[in-house]
Amino acid sequence: MILHLSTWPEIEARLTRSRTIVIPIGSTEQHGPTGLLGTDWLCSEIIAHRAHTENADILVGPTFNVGMAQHHLAFPGTISLRPSTMILALRDWVSSLSAHGFETIYFLNGHGGNIPTIEAAFSEIYAEASYDKRQSGLVLMLRNWWQLPGIEALAHRQFPTGHGSHAQPSEIAVTQAAYPASIKIADCHPRIAASGPIRDAIDFRARHPDGRMGSDSLQANPGYGEELILLAVKGLMADIGAIEARQDEIG
Amino acid sequence: MILHLSTWPEIEARLTRSRTIVIPIGSTEQHGPTGLLGTDWLCSEIIAHRAHTENADILVGPTFNVGMAQHHLAFPGTISLRPSTMILALRDWVSSLSAHGFETIYFLNGHGGNIPTIEAAFSEIYAEASYDKRQSGLVLMLRNWWQLPGIEALAHRQFPTGHGSHAQPSEIAVTQAAYPASIKIADCHPRIAASGPIRDAIDFRARHPDGRMGSDSLQANPGYGEELILLAVKGLMADIGAIEARQDEIG
Amino acid sequence: MILHLSTWPEIEARLTRSRTIVIPIGSTEQHGPTGLLGTDWLCSEIIAHRAHTENADILVGPTFNVGMAQHHLAFPGTISLRPSTMILALRDWVSSLSAHGFETIYFLNGHGGNIPTIEAAFSEIYAEASYDKRQSGLVLMLRNWWQLPGIEALAHRQFPTGHGSHAQPSEIAVTQAAYPASIKIADCHPRIAASGPIRDAIDFRARHPDGRMGSDSLQANPGYGEELILLAVKGLMADIGAIEARQDEIG
Amino acid sequence: MILHLSTWPEIEARLTRSRTIVIPIGSTEQHGPTGLLGTDWLCSEIIAHRAHTENADILVGPTFNVGMAQHHLAFPGTISLRPSTMILALRDWVSSLSAHGFETIYFLNGHGGNIPTIEAAFSEIYAEASYDKRQSGLVLMLRNWWQLPGIEALAHRQFPTGHGSHAQPSEIAVTQAAYPASIKIADCHPRIAASGPIRDAIDFRARHPDGRMGSDSLQANPGYGEELILLAVKGLMADIGAIEARQDEIG
Amino acid sequence: MILHLSTWPEIEARLTRSRTIVIPIGSTEQHGPTGLLGTDWLCSEIIAHRAHTENADILVGPTFNVGMAQHHLAFPGTISLRPSTMILALRDWVSSLSAHGFETIYFLNGHGGNIPTIEAAFSEIYAEASYDKRQSGLVLMLRNWWQLPGIEALAHRQFPTGHGSHAQPSEIAVTQAAYPASIKIADCHPRIAASGPIRDAIDFRARHPDGRMGSDSLQANPGYGEELILLAVKGLMADIGAIEARQDEIG
Amino acid sequence: MILHLSTWPEIEARLTRSRTIVIPIGSTEQHGPTGLLGTDWLCSEIIAHRAHTENADILVGPTFNVGMAQHHLAFPGTISLRPSTMILALRDWVSSLSAHGFETIYFLNGHGGNIPTIEAAFSEIYAEASYDKRQSGLVLMLRNWWQLPGIEALAHRQFPTGHGSHAQPSEIAVTQAAYPASIKIADCHPRIAASGPIRDAIDFRARHPDGRMGSDSLQANPGYGEELILLAVKGLMADIGAIEARQDEIG
Repeated sequence: MILHLSTWPEIEARLTRSRTIVIPIGSTEQHGPTGLLGTDWLCSEIIAHRAHTENADILVGPTFNVGMAQHHLAFPGTISLRPSTMILALRDWVSSLSAHGFETIYFLNGHGGNIPTIEAAFSEIYAEASYDKRQSGLVLMLRNWWQLPGIEALAHRQFPTGHGSHAQPSEIAVTQAAYPASIKIADCHPRIAASGPIRDAIDFRARHPDGRMGSDSLQANPGYGEELILLAVKGLMADIGAIEARQDEIG
Repeated sequence: MILHLSTWPEIEARLTRSRTIVIPIGSTEQHGPTGLLGTDWLCSEIIAHRAHTENADILVGPTFNVGMAQHHLAFPGTISLRPSTMILALRDWVSSLSAHGFETIYFLNGHGGNIPTIEAAFSEIYAEASYDKRQSGLVLMLRNWWQLPGIEALAHRQFPTGHGSHAQPSEIAVTQAAYPASIKIADCHPRIAASGPIRDAIDFRARHPDGRMGSDSLQANPGYGEELILLAVKGLMADIGAIEARQDEIG
Repeated sequence: MILHLSTWPEIEARLTRSRTIVIPIGSTEQHGPTGLLGTDWLCSEIIAHRAHTENADILVGPTFNVGMAQHHLAFPGTISLRPSTMILALRDWVSSLSAHGFETIYFLNGHGGNIPTIEAAFSEIYAEASYDKRQSGLVLMLRNWWQLPGIEALAHRQFPTGHGSHAQPSEIAVTQAAYPASIKIADCHPRIAASGPIRDAIDFRARHPDGRMGSDSLQANPGYGEELILLAVKGLMADIGAIEARQDEIG
Repeated sequence: MILHLSTWPEIEARLTRSRTIVIPIGSTEQHGPTGLLGTDWLCSEIIAHRAHTENADILVGPTFNVGMAQHHLAFPGTISLRPSTMILALRDWVSSLSAHGFETIYFLNGHGGNIPTIEAAFSEIYAEASYDKRQSGLVLMLRNWWQLPGIEALAHRQFPTGHGSHAQPSEIAVTQAAYPASIKIADCHPRIAASGPIRDAIDFRARHPDGRMGSDSLQANPGYGEELILLAVKGLMADIGAIEARQDEIG
Repeated sequence: MILHLSTWPEIEARLTRSRTIVIPIGSTEQHGPTGLLGTDWLCSEIIAHRAHTENADILVGPTFNVGMAQHHLAFPGTISLRPSTMILALRDWVSSLSAHGFETIYFLNGHGGNIPTIEAAFSEIYAEASYDKRQSGLVLMLRNWWQLPGIEALAHRQFPTGHGSHAQPSEIAVTQAAYPASIKIADCHPRIAASGPIRDAIDFRARHPDGRMGSDSLQANPGYGEELILLAVKGLMADIGAIEARQDEIG
Repeated sequence: MILHLSTWPEIEARLTRSRTIVIPIGSTEQHGPTGLLGTDWLCSEIIAHRAHTENADILVGPTFNVGMAQHHLAFPGTISLRPSTMILALRDWVSSLSAHGFETIYFLNGHGGNIPTIEAAFSEIYAEASYDKRQSGLVLMLRNWWQLPGIEALAHRQFPTGHGSHAQPSEIAVTQAAYPASIKIADCHPRIAASGPIRDAIDFRARHPDGRMGSDSLQANPGYGEELILLAVKGLMADIGAIEARQDEIG
């Protein structure tokens, strides 16, 4: 089920048999000369919605589409939340879902830069219960789609060199498979971009003039993207299956 | 252009000729027995993306898809930000866009309950400049899609009775036109729901047991939705044209 | 009763028969060459206190005298809260009154620019209850004095042209009636000021060099002010009567 | 001058010769069986406005009428800000006044419980400049009216026993002089209330069942109040004179 | 006991017989040419730990070692929290300790500039209970070590002139006694530094070029420091004894 | 140099040749039946101070001794900040140090649970510069002491089984070497504790009844601790050397 394409009675009915929801989460940020600004949230959304299409028994919420991308702000089109804002927004999303009885909120993440803030948000949410000596009733999970079983191995088979860490051919390939009309063509020099530390936005653009980090984005193609999507869907379904199985034991 | 389906060099190029961006904004909240939980943000997104499809020279950013919906929290599936959180999130979106040189940020809104918080956010953003005695360089605009020229008149011709104020047949029709596979069928009693004040969520559900306010949602149909979309696109394009014309004068 | 001129046992006694309180709220902001900086809160306070003087059975709290006026900050004397600050302050006022058992908190507002922030504050307050799935026990009401029954019609009879939207002759007249020693005389050119959008403070002053918006403030006179006060008192008493009547039904 | 009874051109003119403003500040909180809920802000306002009436060359801003009174919340009618809220509100007031060119902002305080929060707010405001290695351009002053020269001595001559620390006969006398129609009569047992520490509101009411702390409020009378007002006005005028003299040296 | 050198079962055991904890609190800020940057927190820590060493039955928590020192930020090495941050940090410390069952949290303070913020934090913490009409169950105490019985008298006997108000010989002497290897030698001109008001950091350094306020720091010596420590330990033990005695009555 | 045992002129002098500072950071939280509550911050402090003792040319600031430990709050003695509070506190520390000209702020961390919040704080700090399109001038570094070169390998040689992830014998050994008087003896059953996910505090204690996670703490001994300290000091000195070398190139 896709939450935003469902009605409240449908969600109410689903809650009687499952207390789990998947939230795709990513970022709107530059992904080099050929990567889409939405790459990170598109990847998560593509995988989660494909699982739904393939009849997985999952509930997918709306996509959290602007994350923590301060270091990309020197590239036009990037939109970033401050970590403090993102913590509050995640708290409000979780509070809303928790009020309805959702127990496991599984964030399928597409942006490495979100990880610390999402984990800090989880602690912020749990802390309210911990100070009060009460149970939160929540299981907050963060899963980066590229860490689903087999994905890293597949990506490195597809892209043995120049996979890099930003504007990776793998993530671009995923968006190419899903949005073929938006495949972009551009030159990239050097083919494999430099790596470096992440600090503020001006520092980042000085080190990474076209936005890529360590990657050769031009290797992306939709066929590889489709392979990645299918494997990720399989991993996601396995995760959800494991969660639901555990709930049966508990409930 | 759709920002999340574009690259940063494409946005950089566009900024040399236009400093305007459209942000669809809405809410994830119950819309009665037949309305989708995403109705409010879907409507804004549908209209803005259709304008793009029809070759309008506009730039559409990612959709702000969870808004202020506290009064709907007693219905499963609703996700709400606190107003204070939403103000911070809007501040971060606007700060990001302003850093790139965007001047006019036009929020195409699909949820009445967002209006006070969006307007408060605008004041919060402007205030930083006002205390410092500097110009903000920003033109923040809020446009509710149902107030685009001709929309209210059309909706009342389509739905002379039972248009109501929540889970309206007009907004449901717009989503039906765009997502025909998600048209829902359910009974609604009474056909025209009661009206009433908006307070906290429990109070709201007590007054509006199925979530509708003053509306007969069942009148919605995709044909009417398509008429509404086309007229809204026309209004949106007129708005953007007027903004750009003014920029020509200034710039 | 005027709360700040009462003792706590007097308030305790009143609470046994009424759980309603009126809070005058406004702004300290420029009102053109002849309008007082306190116009907006003075108007609300004048009306509410006059109702008390005329033996209405109402309880009037202290006046919330600095509101959201960021756009007037380029004119000396204006004092503004940020919307985020005002939300917190209103939350604290309401939390205090709610702790004592007040149920209906009726804000009699004198400043249009406060409306979004007050409404956002109401949502912020209700949201705490909504996330927790409990009733707030609160009825938060916002009433702009110029929307009390008959006021707009009277003002437009008194000032058929040049009523405008800021530094209106009607609001200035109300303060003239109550503070005749503070009636100011100044020239205003043009007689009817220009209208325009509201953005940051420097933009505002550039558009509205003497602070007025669309108004011919010089038409104000104390006699008209007295008429407005008396009609507003009547409307306020009707509102309070309706609230109390409803409480009888519920209680 | 009273700011809220002035126009912006009057304030603009005044700023050319003085950059000082007085802000009366207090609290809305219980003051025992006979003290008014507004006692603390009324005292500050009464003294500052009387100085104006007696032709002192001072500018008096609007009264900050709800302060930090959490410990009195178990008594009906008390309204309290959290310290964190009050810091933000004071920051916004000061930012507004500073934008106009005010340099010395002199808070004439009527509530002991406000002192830590006001001083913390001053540090919060100064800190912004200090972290940035720039001058704030501000002189923030806190003066408790009961510490103006001679006031404590006079109060102890008037009330040699039972002056106490809350619901003091001196502060009640000041309000009696200014609001003779609101003089309250009630019994108080014991005549001199107990003293004790200040913690949360329930603890406070348990220790101080009628709200007084160490005081015999019934000694208050309007004549003593008038003496206190006149002496306080003299002290306030001396303070302002000293501030302005120093500005002449600097400016 | 020193909390950070204890295990959780040891603290759990102690809680069965005492619900009191001492938190040394101070500041990291310049203390003139010869005073250590840690002077303020070292003094509190030295005294509290010495009490432990001398077998006092006390529990000492970790030292809160960075406080409110914005006015010293123009001197290298100073680290300051904003008051608003410090309030939140103190709230979190107290919430943690309260969750374990601690009732009396006794802050042994070494920095005058912390006092308003600590007191504001206490009110912030109590306020949560007060708005909710429940008991906080907390006794929050602030004790400045220089106000322990006899300390001021001793310091003025040791340093009859030039004790001053910052970089005082007494506090420096305490650190010299405990950290003899860190005794610093420097010239100070004039021997007794000037006094003055406290505003922002640049203003402070302009008034106090070497950081001292009213003090002749060079009078400090370890012997005097040892006398002060011993007397302070005695005072601290008396305070704790009084607190525990009262608990026996209550519990 | 130890900052808190230095004077401001000493820090001012040092800044002319190095703009780097080390901040030990950790947590005050339960570490099983034999681990000290201060283990995490003690480890960082011990290593950094030992580097100083061994004549490394480093500057060590005060220890950030209470971190993010919400999940341990069900064990007495744990003190935790909320992530949001810790972000603000770190921002204030960094702002202070940055104002003095420090460029590289190197956090030597002793607590895994701090990592997301520290990284989120770094992004929060950088973001201010990034939104403003200015360079932050900061290099914020996080180094967990157990990830200094060779430490993990050594720890696993020392403790081939039962190293675990909380209350590890390695960290306990470090504190034993530095605080031999505080070595604790207790039974632990089972010898190797269970592992599990981290959620709220009650959940954590239910899964880990004595506080350990996957560890056999009883293997700790001071000799192993000394070895770890010496190797960590070597790694820390290498890190600082590399940072300073880079500065020579840049400066």
